[in-house]
Amino acid sequence: MKILVINSGSSSIKYQLLDMENDSVLASGVIECIGLEQGILTHKKAPDTDAAIKIVVEQPIPDHAVGMHLAVDALTHPEHGVITDASEIDGVGHRIVHGGEKFTTPMLVDQSVIDGIREVADLAPLHNLAHLTGIEVAQSIFKCKHVTVFDTAFHQTMPAKAYQYAIPYEIYEELHVRRYGFHGTSHKYVARRTAELLGKPAEDLNIITVHLGNGSSLAAIQGGKCIDTSMGMTPLAGVIMGTRSGNVDPAVLKFIAEKKGLSIQEVEEMLTKRSGLVGICGMSDMRDIHSAIEKGDERAKLALDMVCHRVRQYIGAYWAELGRVDAIVFTAGIGENDDIVRLGVLKGMEPMGVILDEAANAKRAGEWARISTPESKVDVLVVRTNEELEIARETVKFVK
Amino acid sequence: MKILVINSGSSSIKYQLLDMENDSVLASGVIECIGLEQGILTHKKAPDTDAAIKIVVEQPIPDHAVGMHLAVDALTHPEHGVITDASEIDGVGHRIVHGGEKFTTPMLVDQSVIDGIREVADLAPLHNLAHLTGIEVAQSIFKCKHVTVFDTAFHQTMPAKAYQYAIPYEIYEELHVRRYGFHGTSHKYVARRTAELLGKPAEDLNIITVHLGNGSSLAAIQGGKCIDTSMGMTPLAGVIMGTRSGNVDPAVLKFIAEKKGLSIQEVEEMLTKRSGLVGICGMSDMRDIHSAIEKGDERAKLALDMVCHRVRQYIGAYWAELGRVDAIVFTAGIGENDDIVRLGVLKGMEPMGVILDEAANAKRAGEWARISTPESKVDVLVVRTNEELEIARETVKFVK
Repeated sequence: MKILVINSGSSSIKYQLLDMENDSVLASGVIECIGLEQGILTHKKAPDTDAAIKIVVEQPIPDHAVGMHLAVDALTHPEHGVITDASEIDGVGHRIVHGGEKFTTPMLVDQSVIDGIREVADLAPLHNLAHLTGIEVAQSIFKCKHVTVFDTAFHQTMPAKAYQYAIPYEIYEELHVRRYGFHGTSHKYVARRTAELLGKPAEDLNIITVHLGNGSSLAAIQGGKCIDTSMGMTPLAGVIMGTRSGNVDPAVLKFIAEKKGLSIQEVEEMLTKRSGLVGICGMSDMRDIHSAIEKGDERAKLALDMVCHRVRQYIGAYWAELGRVDAIVFTAGIGENDDIVRLGVLKGMEPMGVILDEAANAKRAGEWARISTPESKVDVLVVRTNEELEIARETVKFVK
Repeated sequence: MKILVINSGSSSIKYQLLDMENDSVLASGVIECIGLEQGILTHKKAPDTDAAIKIVVEQPIPDHAVGMHLAVDALTHPEHGVITDASEIDGVGHRIVHGGEKFTTPMLVDQSVIDGIREVADLAPLHNLAHLTGIEVAQSIFKCKHVTVFDTAFHQTMPAKAYQYAIPYEIYEELHVRRYGFHGTSHKYVARRTAELLGKPAEDLNIITVHLGNGSSLAAIQGGKCIDTSMGMTPLAGVIMGTRSGNVDPAVLKFIAEKKGLSIQEVEEMLTKRSGLVGICGMSDMRDIHSAIEKGDERAKLALDMVCHRVRQYIGAYWAELGRVDAIVFTAGIGENDDIVRLGVLKGMEPMGVILDEAANAKRAGEWARISTPESKVDVLVVRTNEELEIARETVKFVK
């Protein structure tokens, strides 16, 4: 069974074609700069294998439909294609950022699902409307079942005490302002994989998943269900990210607006695009930050220390909520590859029963690795996330 | 030695006269509605004793000077007074809310201190300017040493990773936007008292102090020094309070502003005055909330659960930061008197070594009580805070 996974943005489409017989990636690609003067398609056949072939097509891509047809041309190309016809695709899985309170599980696309995604679009207008464009275009090309998988859905099991903000209750009722959380597909995938790796039923495990990438979030997962997560109504909240501030005193916004003569929109843009790591030290990539630290850059060191500090605080917070923790799991770009950050987060938690195996931590993890010692009361793992595979698996359930 | 402690607000002055020979309170009072049509002085001789006398004077109090003279009249009154002349007062201690980064310890008042308080007033304009009025008036009446004690000073030992926000660094440099923390006098007093009660040097103890009152904050105290606290640049941040939201996704402010057509000032006012407990369930007093819960009010139950949830998360966060925790200490109105909140915060943390003695917790604590069992790895205490005594003690150091 072949499943196409699509992540449609306002000016881009990412795709991945998977063969679900063996969970392998047949091809992947990204269409960028849709609507701009020059568009670009980057397509890879058999990515991350010895047989990988990459092609790049540069041409104007006026809209998502043109872009998607380019992708189909690449997928069906005699040389770098992997199928002969679009009809070989058995199902399409669409990543949707915001499902609001409406969507708690993946959904087979029909008119009511499309209406629902539009209804909650207020909470993430740029993303959700782009997703709807992607669905429309994909439905016109791929005459198979289409499934939506929501970034927020896994977190819908949070209890009210965790998802409610202490704001006037009618603001929640009227505007649906509450914590939703994101990266749900990743947290879910990694938590389930952790249960497999530990050889225990997910129902018996309390896990803290630490997704550290360009965007970062943590989740507290009790018996397979999310009970709390660090992002909020939007992906701005929580820990420190590449360009996003994470949590700040809410009074900081008015203060900056008044002192700098900015609108609230401009202050939020500052917190979203010019804060986080880049705000502290001018660099958003953790690898650049490590290089700068080696050269004695104190601001870079501060940025690293702050990231570790906030992540560690969330681990502690979720530990207190869970009572008992069986595993702490690092995933995503930084979580999987940055041993310095992992060490910075966990060093000093030995009295709580977290004993890092520093040698194992320093090694490059493959699909997964255990980086705690046998004496550690808590298993610390690195697990490679795979949101596309998770979306494809959810899609398969509807196609079967 | 007799020390007068003054807390001057924009339309009120609180005072307490202490005899430092035995730390007793000779008299206390509050002057309210300064500048309004009708002012009011409430004065107590020997408060909280069997010999307590209370008098109330209602008359127009146009300014702080008139109010302070009324207080002097009461303090020197033949019947309900406790001194014969203002000159008997050996020192005056002034509570100052915001010391910015400038003041890390109590200060003997001189022109440079007054200038300094004015300099950092941007960060808490209402409070600091009212404090300056209070100092000016008090200096004209009491010809003794005046000392300022800052609510922020105890937290100035926080490392940069804890006090910096992940916002553009120049915003910190230019506007001094950072975490300051408040209730420092209370956290300091309670932490030192805890060390006394446990019979151990403060330097050897890691303590989490939980100040839960109308305003609430926690502090992580390592070897007697604050390394983190939950309030931020302002007292709006951190846990949920009577009318204050505590932390929310920073993106919530713009969203509410746009959807409700409010200015950023109006949204901040909503988060400050109509959020927190009152926002969730319409009540800001925890006693009312408990009564409502008994009558089946689900929103009141949600408010209680949310408060406990956030406090517990901070305890966990600070635990992870401290690595090892020796004591968790509850103080202030709710912390000292509300066993239901204390139970709600700590119940379920048994796997971490926190074993509450539920019978001891349910009893009314006097000046202090231990509410953990002997098996508990962490001592859980209730300790009555006394900010006025702490301010008076700091004042004595300069008078001597």
